[in-house]
Amino acid sequence: MHRLAVLAVAAAIAAAGQTLPATAEMGQTMGATFNGAGETTIPENFRQWVFVGAPLTPLGLNAGKAGFPEFHHVYVEPKAFETYRKTGRFPEGTTIVKELVLLHPGDYPDGSRDEASGRGFFAKSFNGIDMMVKDSARFADTNGWGFFNFGHHAPPYAAKAAAGPADACASCHTANATKDMVFTKFYPILN
Amino acid sequence: MHRLAVLAVAAAIAAAGQTLPATAEMGQTMGATFNGAGETTIPENFRQWVFVGAPLTPLGLNAGKAGFPEFHHVYVEPKAFETYRKTGRFPEGTTIVKELVLLHPGDYPDGSRDEASGRGFFAKSFNGIDMMVKDSARFADTNGWGFFNFGHHAPPYAAKAAAGPADACASCHTANATKDMVFTKFYPILN
Repeated sequence: MHRLAVLAVAAAIAAAGQTLPATAEMGQTMGATFNGAGETTIPENFRQWVFVGAPLTPLGLNAGKAGFPEFHHVYVEPKAFETYRKTGRFPEGTTIVKELVLLHPGDYPDGSRDEASGRGFFAKSFNGIDMMVKDSARFADTNGWGFFNFGHHAPPYAAKAAAGPADACASCHTANATKDMVFTKFYPILN
Repeated sequence: MHRLAVLAVAAAIAAAGQTLPATAEMGQTMGATFNGAGETTIPENFRQWVFVGAPLTPLGLNAGKAGFPEFHHVYVEPKAFETYRKTGRFPEGTTIVKELVLLHPGDYPDGSRDEASGRGFFAKSFNGIDMMVKDSARFADTNGWGFFNFGHHAPPYAAKAAAGPADACASCHTANATKDMVFTKFYPILN
């Protein structure tokens, strides 16, 4: 139904000869869709969703083996974000995408380098996608969220993924996340 | 005219009984507006613009005196982003906001700390706003861009700001930025 609503809006706007604002052209349905095997895909245009934070775990500070190399660009689907902002809760269907991004090569062993703005860490290239989807019925065994890994490597990413087992992602989120399986403490806009 | 177009779209959608996608509800005009003193304001809802990157210059790696402490969350106004993506050029009126964000306190002198995802850097609290606006006529003396500083400190930020002198920001961008005064090399989505 929601997809139809988006199409109807687009049609109404086209008929009126108006230009839809840029972020609306990429209008997203809030929830992920699953095939019979329980697989889902990477949402289109997730990079135009609401950015909430970029934790950084450099390879240089993790013996070259960071679990998530290296920036974690985290985006929340816009309608879910709006609901969260109004209610303080992630609604059913909330989708959060984390894209990994490798650094420009470091001048120092920690991976940092000297740039005009100072010594620090600077993103260079995309390096993978993880995603979490809230569906309390489907993912009842992992606190209501499913966790998907589309590869930790340069694009192209995997075309589809099934939710991983509890010990792949959910157990760490259960043990360590701040609020409803999300590390909100690292995302000031969510606090 | 653009504002009228947005209102017309909103009216058309309201008439159709549809819900406008979340990011469009916050529809932005592309350009900043200036008062008679040449001052402008922080755009509303810039945190829902298109995020392009988060360079990090930790205080701990800059002798406690980073010029931009510490994450730099950089957002491009959505309509300007769309034009850039289609043409490879920033159109007149392009507005880019950089919000500074302080880290959670470090476990190590560099400012990094140990978290479940590894040793790294994790954002805690907003700490300032810089902004650049492309207006080739108004800012002809600084390569067509004006640079604004609304304070490097916790919110509330300054209500308005005039463009700074060339040696405050523009000279460094002129000398070091990758493309049309923007550090695109740190923003993979712009490459």
